[in-house]
Amino acid sequence: MTDTGHTANILGFAHRHLLGIDGLTAEQITFLLDLSDSYVALNRSDDKKTSLLRGRTVINLFFENSTRTRTSFELAGKRLGADVINMSVSSSSIKKGETLIDTAMTLNAMHPDVLIVRHPDSGAVKLLSEKVNCAVINGGDGSHEHPTQALLDAQTIRRRRGNLQGLRVAICGDILHSRVARSNIQLLGIMGAHVRVIAPPTLLPSNIERLGVEAFFDMREGLKDCDIVMMLRLQTERMQGSFVPSIREYFRFFGLDRDKLQAAKPDALIMHPGPMNRGVEIDSELADDIDRSLIRDQVEMGVAVRMACLDALTRTLRSNSEERTAAQAGGAA
Amino acid sequence: MTDTGHTANILGFAHRHLLGIDGLTAEQITFLLDLSDSYVALNRSDDKKTSLLRGRTVINLFFENSTRTRTSFELAGKRLGADVINMSVSSSSIKKGETLIDTAMTLNAMHPDVLIVRHPDSGAVKLLSEKVNCAVINGGDGSHEHPTQALLDAQTIRRRRGNLQGLRVAICGDILHSRVARSNIQLLGIMGAHVRVIAPPTLLPSNIERLGVEAFFDMREGLKDCDIVMMLRLQTERMQGSFVPSIREYFRFFGLDRDKLQAAKPDALIMHPGPMNRGVEIDSELADDIDRSLIRDQVEMGVAVRMACLDALTRTLRSNSEERTAAQAGGAA
Amino acid sequence: MTDTGHTANILGFAHRHLLGIDGLTAEQITFLLDLSDSYVALNRSDDKKTSLLRGRTVINLFFENSTRTRTSFELAGKRLGADVINMSVSSSSIKKGETLIDTAMTLNAMHPDVLIVRHPDSGAVKLLSEKVNCAVINGGDGSHEHPTQALLDAQTIRRRRGNLQGLRVAICGDILHSRVARSNIQLLGIMGAHVRVIAPPTLLPSNIERLGVEAFFDMREGLKDCDIVMMLRLQTERMQGSFVPSIREYFRFFGLDRDKLQAAKPDALIMHPGPMNRGVEIDSELADDIDRSLIRDQVEMGVAVRMACLDALTRTLRSNSEERTAAQAGGAA
Repeated sequence: MTDTGHTANILGFAHRHLLGIDGLTAEQITFLLDLSDSYVALNRSDDKKTSLLRGRTVINLFFENSTRTRTSFELAGKRLGADVINMSVSSSSIKKGETLIDTAMTLNAMHPDVLIVRHPDSGAVKLLSEKVNCAVINGGDGSHEHPTQALLDAQTIRRRRGNLQGLRVAICGDILHSRVARSNIQLLGIMGAHVRVIAPPTLLPSNIERLGVEAFFDMREGLKDCDIVMMLRLQTERMQGSFVPSIREYFRFFGLDRDKLQAAKPDALIMHPGPMNRGVEIDSELADDIDRSLIRDQVEMGVAVRMACLDALTRTLRSNSEERTAAQAGGAA
Repeated sequence: MTDTGHTANILGFAHRHLLGIDGLTAEQITFLLDLSDSYVALNRSDDKKTSLLRGRTVINLFFENSTRTRTSFELAGKRLGADVINMSVSSSSIKKGETLIDTAMTLNAMHPDVLIVRHPDSGAVKLLSEKVNCAVINGGDGSHEHPTQALLDAQTIRRRRGNLQGLRVAICGDILHSRVARSNIQLLGIMGAHVRVIAPPTLLPSNIERLGVEAFFDMREGLKDCDIVMMLRLQTERMQGSFVPSIREYFRFFGLDRDKLQAAKPDALIMHPGPMNRGVEIDSELADDIDRSLIRDQVEMGVAVRMACLDALTRTLRSNSEERTAAQAGGAA
Repeated sequence: MTDTGHTANILGFAHRHLLGIDGLTAEQITFLLDLSDSYVALNRSDDKKTSLLRGRTVINLFFENSTRTRTSFELAGKRLGADVINMSVSSSSIKKGETLIDTAMTLNAMHPDVLIVRHPDSGAVKLLSEKVNCAVINGGDGSHEHPTQALLDAQTIRRRRGNLQGLRVAICGDILHSRVARSNIQLLGIMGAHVRVIAPPTLLPSNIERLGVEAFFDMREGLKDCDIVMMLRLQTERMQGSFVPSIREYFRFFGLDRDKLQAAKPDALIMHPGPMNRGVEIDSELADDIDRSLIRDQVEMGVAVRMACLDALTRTLRSNSEERTAAQAGGAA
């Protein structure tokens, strides 16, 4: 995170990059969520297009496949009027032996304004951000951070409950491999929520309590009196060589169903970052319960939150350009 | 097909979705073809861009690969000024175990205005259309329907012959696996053409005559006195486990060449939905005969017809939004 | 190359296609490089968007994977305001058995204004260009030509050295498989530079000296007194069945390092078309030497040069359309 200084007080958000939730303040998070609210309204209207980022270039640089996250960022960029370019790198330059840094330098030379980067290695996005002149948004790096997911989750909860402060939130499942869990734990902590994690011992990092959360190995114990139940996707694709649970056993002990949900508050709300494995992490009927499941809201908030991030990260850029224009106009007068 | 009511009389087309030709009236088809004519003219001009769908989002959701159909829809959407997003799903969420319905719900939450869906299973597009708020265009589902192909074929014939009424049309080849055949049989019947199908017994559904067509197993008999000869692609990729004909035998008995074409009317015209297997379904020289082959016209009409469909399906949407704007202006006055 | 006549004198560039450097004059190359300069300035500004090609359609038709070249052309088209469509054909129609010509005819029927084509076979782009009505840019065909790469290399050198005339340029490495080498040899010759090629005997075409270059098998001999050192990528993917060098041996004899570079002029500049194999063709530290390496400039010039080519090739088109508009206005008056 690099602070670019003087416009921070006015804008509430003057970072150059969004690499993670770690390092943000409650004020900055609130600024981004407030800004997202205006984009929720825009996205629900007939003309979903602004020209805020007209003439700007946004590049989606995905080293890992993710159709839904890429689509969400692509829509966000296009609705703001930017030119959006998709680069899926798994199948191309990587094969030709180009390094991450060379890819970054190459794109940087094309003068993008924002790079959105997803990468299978934790820390890769930060490394890349240090080599480029443009703003970088972490679209998920290894098991490290996925900040826009945490922001959209926060936005989803805030719009339903008014506030995050004091809520008791349980994050359940494959904590070990989850950047979603890591970013949510950070954000919820900063915003004053009480966070619990519930997982089988094999899917829970040993030092998790250092992040200020309570850890549980039993769903009913962990869900007791919770306001929000966040289920995680079982990332079997990251479990090569390590413990892969039996699906049937996993659902029996850690899948969310009506029975286990009874332990939570009567009005507890259910979340899942998608894509869901129905019948593995969550009972299908619960996932579709329109009173309790926020899963669709999460997707909707995703586009709005990403628009807010693109808007916020280009503000310094845009204010500089306006200052320049004003100065030129003044000089000419 | 859902009728949205009051604007039907004015617009001639007030469906929310375009799932198939089945259920359309001759007036509605004529309305779409007339509208297509104006887009043919636009596409031949220098500035091929309108802002009709500015601020609207069109998503190409393809569960089957099809570069040419996807490109045709993408161009149609972009030339109308929409933001177009391509999602090719075979390689992504499907692998992660997400269901069709979850994919639909996810996209729906992003507030698209039109979803164009291609899917390998018959009926999948209709199922999906029932779960979303936006307009859905069937871009081809299994061996069921491919309505924009039938419309572009009709447009191609109409521009050359003035009318579809009373024409004798032969559809030849792999009828069994062809959604193109099914949609064309529907449309040509509604518009008053006489339809014949010609195929080997193994590639002809047993109940095909219920659709009001005459069936033939011999090309020369079937082509007798025909005005239009529509060849189909041999879809060997759909023939797993069932009868796969020998290419050489197939061409000998069912491939279109000058000799067999002699049975048709002297000015009979040739069509093929592409991509062609030259020397399998059609003699290469005939395919390139600019007097008789309409194959290139079909591709050109494809973009225009898809623009007309996007225009027509968003009219209710757009007229609602204009009414709202007018009402707001009135309220403010 | 087709000359369309009367506007050539005014515009300096009145070709319909850009298939290669072969056949261009020094004046035409200078015209394109001068035009590129204005796009370099635009790309470095805040609003990188013009509406020069608004309403025009540019199709990227890639029969070979190349994320960086495709991205460069896509950005160029979008920044000029065109609708840009990407078609990657390796995985689609080719599998269904469609021929190159059918793909060309299909796209042509969709009324694109410019087709950018990359193809693994030398001559394929020219063949395709003869079948379509729109402008065609060769994005690289087999081991034949890659004209925009040569133009961007020339632009990079010219901006640093003022002029190409009289410079001594060494092109080093896999000359045999390199369209980049072939286009650069042409262009540098036309512009009055002295070109040397340096390669192991197995990677040097036997008749290379017919192109007016001096050939060397030893780096230190070849680099002697050179102003510019252009390294090439080792295209092991094109070496099936033929001689594939050992990476370690290759770097020892033909990889660029500080030691070998001493043979060149003290201020010699280093280039590489990318993607680099660090430690194979070039020492990693040299590649990143900001005083001597022009590798990042090359990428930046790539977007500008491609914008200039798109601009130049559509000028006749655009001037015709303006004449028509003027004539219509006159008629109406």
